[in-house]
Amino acid sequence: MNTINQIPGGVCAPQGFKASGMHCGITKKVEKKDIGLIFSTVPCVSAAVYTKNKVKAAPLKVTREHLENGTAQAILCNSGNANACNADGYDVASKMCQIASAFLGIPESEIVVASTGVIGQPLNIHPVDACMKSLVGYLSENGSGEAADAIMTTDLMKKEIAVSFTLGGKECKIGAIAKGSGMIHPNMGTMLSFITTDADITAPMLSKALKMVVEDTFNMVSVDGDTSTNDMAVVLANGLAGNAKIEAQEDDFDTFVIALMYVCIYLARMMAKDGEGATKLLECSVKGAKTEESARILAKSVITSSLFKTAMFGADANWGRVLCALGYAETDFDPAKAEVSFASKAGEILVCRDGCGVAFSESRAKEILLHDEIEVHVDLHQGPGEAVAWGCDLTYDYVKINGDYRS
Amino acid sequence: MNTINQIPGGVCAPQGFKASGMHCGITKKVEKKDIGLIFSTVPCVSAAVYTKNKVKAAPLKVTREHLENGTAQAILCNSGNANACNADGYDVASKMCQIASAFLGIPESEIVVASTGVIGQPLNIHPVDACMKSLVGYLSENGSGEAADAIMTTDLMKKEIAVSFTLGGKECKIGAIAKGSGMIHPNMGTMLSFITTDADITAPMLSKALKMVVEDTFNMVSVDGDTSTNDMAVVLANGLAGNAKIEAQEDDFDTFVIALMYVCIYLARMMAKDGEGATKLLECSVKGAKTEESARILAKSVITSSLFKTAMFGADANWGRVLCALGYAETDFDPAKAEVSFASKAGEILVCRDGCGVAFSESRAKEILLHDEIEVHVDLHQGPGEAVAWGCDLTYDYVKINGDYRS
Repeated sequence: MNTINQIPGGVCAPQGFKASGMHCGITKKVEKKDIGLIFSTVPCVSAAVYTKNKVKAAPLKVTREHLENGTAQAILCNSGNANACNADGYDVASKMCQIASAFLGIPESEIVVASTGVIGQPLNIHPVDACMKSLVGYLSENGSGEAADAIMTTDLMKKEIAVSFTLGGKECKIGAIAKGSGMIHPNMGTMLSFITTDADITAPMLSKALKMVVEDTFNMVSVDGDTSTNDMAVVLANGLAGNAKIEAQEDDFDTFVIALMYVCIYLARMMAKDGEGATKLLECSVKGAKTEESARILAKSVITSSLFKTAMFGADANWGRVLCALGYAETDFDPAKAEVSFASKAGEILVCRDGCGVAFSESRAKEILLHDEIEVHVDLHQGPGEAVAWGCDLTYDYVKINGDYRS
Repeated sequence: MNTINQIPGGVCAPQGFKASGMHCGITKKVEKKDIGLIFSTVPCVSAAVYTKNKVKAAPLKVTREHLENGTAQAILCNSGNANACNADGYDVASKMCQIASAFLGIPESEIVVASTGVIGQPLNIHPVDACMKSLVGYLSENGSGEAADAIMTTDLMKKEIAVSFTLGGKECKIGAIAKGSGMIHPNMGTMLSFITTDADITAPMLSKALKMVVEDTFNMVSVDGDTSTNDMAVVLANGLAGNAKIEAQEDDFDTFVIALMYVCIYLARMMAKDGEGATKLLECSVKGAKTEESARILAKSVITSSLFKTAMFGADANWGRVLCALGYAETDFDPAKAEVSFASKAGEILVCRDGCGVAFSESRAKEILLHDEIEVHVDLHQGPGEAVAWGCDLTYDYVKINGDYRS
C-alpha cells in the first residue's frame, strides 16, 4: 500500500513550481493581497473543470481556450472582482494573460486566468499592468502562502495543502491552494482550486483523474446552494519527478488518483468548514441507497437544507429535517427504512429507525451537537450506494456577510 | 367582465360554512390556539393537492383516502405537531377523524385531517379527544379567524381572505385560510391552505381548477427551499350558491378559476411576506423566456437564492446574484440577452442589459430597495414565456427562529 504523507509547501511543494501574491489595488483594502501567480519553470500538461452555470465569467472562457491544447505553464488569479457580466470582460481577461506573458516569457496561451469577487463591475486592468513586474519578480519556492492569501475573498482560513507519495520508487508531490466560502454549491466548480504536481502524466489521464476526483470532493460541497459563475479547478503537471509517465489506467494512475483525492477531500472539507459565517463543519454520509448517484443526491440534499443547517447551528437534534430533506431530494427511496444518527468527537446517537423517531436523550444529543465537526449518518438499507457530502451551518454571520457584500 | 370583490368572513363567507378554533393542549403555550375545524352544513365535493415530498405525514395519507370519492364535509387541523415520521401516526390521524365524526354526526370518511408543527414527535390524541365536544360546539359563521389562528405556527400574520363574484347572475363566494412561513418551497403543497366555496361545481372540474391555480400560485412561493412533509391545499364546494352547476371548461369555469386565482395569489404573497424572519416580500417576474415552464424555473431560482435573498435584506442592488441564479437554473437560455431591473413603490431602476451591468445610481437603487415589497423584473428577450414567483429576504431572524425551533 502506497503511503501518502502530508508535507508543507502548498503549490510549491512539487519540484519546479514557484508562486507569489501581492496587493495591486483591485480591492480597496491595502492590507489585502488581491493578485496571485503560480509558475512552473518547465511546460506542463494541464486539465480543468469549470462551473456549470450558464453565466460564465470571462476568465473561464479565456482559460478554456488556452487549455484546448492540454498544456499550460502559469496560473494568474485576482480576487476582489469576478470579471463576470462585464461587456469588456473577455478583453480584460485576455489582456491579463498578455501582460503576464510578457514578463514570464511564455506564450499567452500557456496562461490560465481566473477571477473571484463581485459580479458585474468592470475590472480595471491598470493595477494588473502596474504590478506584473513585481509579481513575477516575487515568484519564489516559498510563495504558495502568498498566492493562497491573494485568492481569498470572504474566506477566513487559508486553504493550502501538499502531499508526497511514490510512483515506481520515485517521490512525487501534489500541492494545492483553494478559495471558496460563499456562492458554493455542488455542481462542479463551486470554488477556485489550483493544483500542481511534478508527477509525469499525459494530459488525457490527468483530465480523467481530475474529473473522477472532483465528482466525489468539490462537487459534494455546499455552503449556500448558489453555483458560482467563476468556479474552476485546474491542475498543472510538469513531470519533473521523473516517474514512468502515466499513460493508462494502471496501478500508478490509481495511486495518483488516491493522492489527488486526499488533497481534494482536504480542500473540500476546508471550504465547507470555512463556509461564510459557519461555526460548524457538517458531513453527511449516506449508505444503503439504491445507487451511488442516488446516495450523492440524498447527501447533498441534507447538507443543502437551510432548516437542517440552522438546526445544526442551534445544536438542535431536529432529525425530522433530515428526513424531510431526504424526502424532497429528486431520487427514489423508501423512507420507511431510513435510519439516522448524529455523531461527533463526543460520540454517536441514533435518532431515527425505520423512518420513525426513536427515544433518545436530548441532553446527550446536545452534547454531541455542540462540537464543531458534526456527522450525520443515514442508512437507507436498500442498496449498495454510498456517498459523503460536506457543508456548514447557517448562521447570523452568513446573513451579515451577504447582506451588504459589495460595500 | 366579471368583477371580483374582496369581502370579509374568510372560510365562513360562502354560504353554509362554519368554523372554530381553540387551545386543546398539543402546544404548551396556553394562549395559542392549536386545533381548528371547518364544517359545511351540507355535503361538499372536494379536491386537494399534496406535497411531493416522499416523506409524507400521516394525516396526508388519511386525507388522501378520505377524498378518493371526491367528497368531504369538514376539515380538522392541529398545529404544534406535524404527526410525521411517527410509528403510530396513521392510527392517530384516523382516530382524530373518528372523534370528530362522532360529534359532527358525519361519516369519518367525510373528514379531511391535517397537522403542522414538529416532525417526529408522537401526537398525543388525548387533548384532541378532550376538546372535540367544545370545538364542535364553538362552530360559528364568525369562526374563520379562530380557525386561521389555530393553524398558525411561526406565522406572524393571520392568512384569511374571501371574495364574491357572480356565475350566471348568482352571487358565489370563495373563502380561504392558510398557514405557511417556514419549510416552504415550490413543489406543491408548500403550506396548508383550506378553501371553501358555495359555487356548484363537479368534483372533476373543481380538481382541475385547483391544479391549474396551484401551479401559478402556491407552487411559485419559496421561503427557504425546503419542501415540507405536510403540505396540502384543500377546497370544499357545497353548491349552496345555486348557480348552474359547472360541469365543463366553459365561461363559468373560467370565472371560477379567476376568482380562485385571486384568492390563491393573495395567500401566496402573504405566505412569502410572512416567511420566517422576513422583512421584505420579493416578487420576481420573468418574461421573454423560451417557454412558460422555463420562465417558472428561472423565477423560482432567483427567489430561492440565499445570496439574492441576503442582498435584498441588505437593500444591496447586487444584480450579479440575479444573473448567477438565472445561470444555474436547470433550463436553457442565453444570458447575453438578459435585462434586469429592480422596482418598488419608489420607482424602477435598470441595472443590467444584454447580460452586462449598466451604469446606475447606487443611492437611487438603495432608495428603491429600502421598501418592503421589492420586484425584480427579468426580460430575456428570447420567447413568449412568462412567470412570477414570490419569496422573502433571508435575515438574522430566520436563523434565530430555526436555530432552536423545537425548544
